[in-house]
Amino acid sequence: MPKETAARERRVALVPDVVRRLRAAEHEVIVEAGAGLAAGATDEQYVAAGASLGDPWAAEVVAKVAPPSEAELVKLRSGTILVGFLNPLGDPDGLAAIAATGATALAMERIPRISRAQSMDALSSQATVSGYRAVLIASTELERFFPMFMTAAGTVPPAQVLVLGAGVAGLQAIATARRLGAVVTGFDIRSAVKEQIQSLGARFFEVEGLGDAEAEGGYARELTPEEQQIQRDALSVQMGKSDVIVTTALVPGRPAPKLIPASAVELMKPGSVIVDLAAEAGGNCELTRPGETYTTDGGVKIVGPLNLPSEMAEHASALYARNILSLIELGFDFEDEVVKGACVVREGKVV
Amino acid sequence: MPKETAARERRVALVPDVVRRLRAAEHEVIVEAGAGLAAGATDEQYVAAGASLGDPWAAEVVAKVAPPSEAELVKLRSGTILVGFLNPLGDPDGLAAIAATGATALAMERIPRISRAQSMDALSSQATVSGYRAVLIASTELERFFPMFMTAAGTVPPAQVLVLGAGVAGLQAIATARRLGAVVTGFDIRSAVKEQIQSLGARFFEVEGLGDAEAEGGYARELTPEEQQIQRDALSVQMGKSDVIVTTALVPGRPAPKLIPASAVELMKPGSVIVDLAAEAGGNCELTRPGETYTTDGGVKIVGPLNLPSEMAEHASALYARNILSLIELGFDFEDEVVKGACVVREGKVV
Repeated sequence: MPKETAARERRVALVPDVVRRLRAAEHEVIVEAGAGLAAGATDEQYVAAGASLGDPWAAEVVAKVAPPSEAELVKLRSGTILVGFLNPLGDPDGLAAIAATGATALAMERIPRISRAQSMDALSSQATVSGYRAVLIASTELERFFPMFMTAAGTVPPAQVLVLGAGVAGLQAIATARRLGAVVTGFDIRSAVKEQIQSLGARFFEVEGLGDAEAEGGYARELTPEEQQIQRDALSVQMGKSDVIVTTALVPGRPAPKLIPASAVELMKPGSVIVDLAAEAGGNCELTRPGETYTTDGGVKIVGPLNLPSEMAEHASALYARNILSLIELGFDFEDEVVKGACVVREGKVV
Repeated sequence: MPKETAARERRVALVPDVVRRLRAAEHEVIVEAGAGLAAGATDEQYVAAGASLGDPWAAEVVAKVAPPSEAELVKLRSGTILVGFLNPLGDPDGLAAIAATGATALAMERIPRISRAQSMDALSSQATVSGYRAVLIASTELERFFPMFMTAAGTVPPAQVLVLGAGVAGLQAIATARRLGAVVTGFDIRSAVKEQIQSLGARFFEVEGLGDAEAEGGYARELTPEEQQIQRDALSVQMGKSDVIVTTALVPGRPAPKLIPASAVELMKPGSVIVDLAAEAGGNCELTRPGETYTTDGGVKIVGPLNLPSEMAEHASALYARNILSLIELGFDFEDEVVKGACVVREGKVV
C-alpha cells in the first residue's frame, strides 16, 4: 500500500486492523513509510499489525484510494493488479495510461451493486461519510438551531432541512439531520426510495406528473429537459422554506444535474445554508463554487466541498480498507461477476 | 438598542420579533442603523416591526449584549438604565466607569436563578447555544463518526464523549452528543445533577470519596486542592478512553478550574478532540490556548473557542432578546427581588 499523493487526499487504502486480517490469511503486506499518518495510523501500528515497510509498488496487488498520478504510473509494473477509485467514466485517458504499463486494474466504482458485493461497495461506504459530514457542516454554518428548543423564555422552532437525492449519501444526510432534531424533507426522482426516506422520519417530497426514473445499477437516470423544469418549479417553493439544503444528485460520468437554479437561491431566507455534495461534478446548484464556501448577496451560504470523506480520514479509511479486504478475500478470479465487473484494465488492455 | 461594537460580538440585544412585542406593550423602540445585520436582522425588518432608526443612547433603557466600551460610556447618559452582560465579578472597574456616568445598570449575569426569573436567565439561554455548538465543533473536528455504523463491510463503534460540568451548557452538550449517537459520560462535582445526566441517556461518572459541592446560586463551588487531585486521577483514566471531551466548568469571577492536566491529554488517542468552553476564563484544560484550535504533539486537537453564542448569532440573539423582553415586562421596580438582584449600579453608585 503506497502513501496517497493526490491533493486533499488524506485517506489510505489499508488500516492496521485490516493488515492484521490480511496477515492472518497469510498475505504479505508492504506499506510505504508514513502512508497512514494523515489518517491517524502510524508506521509502528502497521508494523505491529504485521506489515513490513518498503516499496509498495513491488507487490502483486497495489491498493490505493485515488487514481495513480503520472509519477505513480511510472512505478506501476506490468502484471501488477491495481485496486482503487480510478474514475473510469470520467477519465478514460487515465485508464489508457494504466493499460500502457501492462498492469491490470480494478475500479472500486465498478463493483457491481449486488448483494454479494455489498461488503466491497466503496462508493456506498464513502458516501455514508459524505452524507453524515454534509449535515455536520450545515449545522455548523447555520446560525440557527437544528432541534426545537422549548425554553423558559420561549420556543425556537426546528430547522427545516431539504435533502435532494436519496442515495446512500442522501439517506445518511437525512438520518443525521433527523438525529439532530431537524424537520427533514427528502426528494428523489426515483419514487422507489419513498419508503426509505419515510422510514428515517422524513417527509417524501413528491412532484406530480413525474414518472419513475431508475437506470441500471441503482442510479438515477438523467432527466429530460421538460421533467427538469417541472421538478425545478415544484422544488423552488420547498427550497424557499428551507433553512438547509443538502444536495447529493450525481449521474455517473456526467456533470451533476442543476437542481437548484439561481432563482431558487434568491427565494431562500438570509442565513440559510446549501451544502452541495455534487461540487466535484460541477454542483447541483447553479451558484456552487467547487472547493469554496461563500455567501451570496442574498445572504445564503453555499458550501461546495471536495473530497469530504478525506476530512474524516480515520473512519473513512477504516471503511474503505474493509471494502478492499473483502475484494482481496474474494480472490482475483476474472470469471467472477464481481471481479469481472470491476476490472477496467486487464493485462495492459482497457476492457 | 445600539449596534454591538466588541470584537467577535455578532449578537444583538433585540430582534424584530421582540420589538413587535415591545411595541404592542406601547414601548417606543429606537434601533441604531445596521445593528442587527450580523445577527441576520435588517433595518427594514426592525422598522416593519415598529422600531425607529436613530440614536439608541437617547432612550430611557439601553439594551446591550457586551459591556460598554469606552466610546459607548461617553454616550451613556445620567439616569439611563443600561441592561446587558456587564461582567460584574470579573470587571469591577467597568462597573465603576458606568457609575461615573450617573446611569443605572442591570447585569444579566446577576439575574437571580429563581423560578420566577427563568425567562430572564440569559446565562442559561446563551449556555444552551454554547453546549449545542461545542458538540457540533467536536463532531466536525473528529475524524471519526459519532454514531455507531453497522455496514456490510463491518461495524464502526460509536464515539466516546466525556462532558465535564453539567450546568446548562454541559447538559445541552450531553443531549446533543447523545442525539448524534455517541456514548456519553457526564461528570459534575455536584452529585445532585446525577439524575439529570442519566435522564439524557448518559452515564454519570462518580468519584468515590468526594462530597457534594454546590454553592449559592446553583454554581459549583471551587474544589479544595486535595479534592482536585482525587478528581484528576480518577478522571484521567476516563479521559484516556474518550474520543471527545467537552469541558464547561466555570466558577463565577475566578479562573476556570484546570480539570484536564497536560498528563491526561497525553493519555488520549491521537485524533481525539477537546472542546474547552471555559477558554474565556483561561480554560479547563492546562493546554488550552484561548481563541485557538491546535493539535498537540500527541495528535490531540484542542479547541478553545471564544464567544460561541456569537457564532450562532441569529438564534442566540433571539433567545437573549426574549430574556431582555421579560425583564422589561417586569418593569424596573428596584424593590423587586429580581431587579434588585440584577442591579449592579444604581443612579451612579455601584451596589
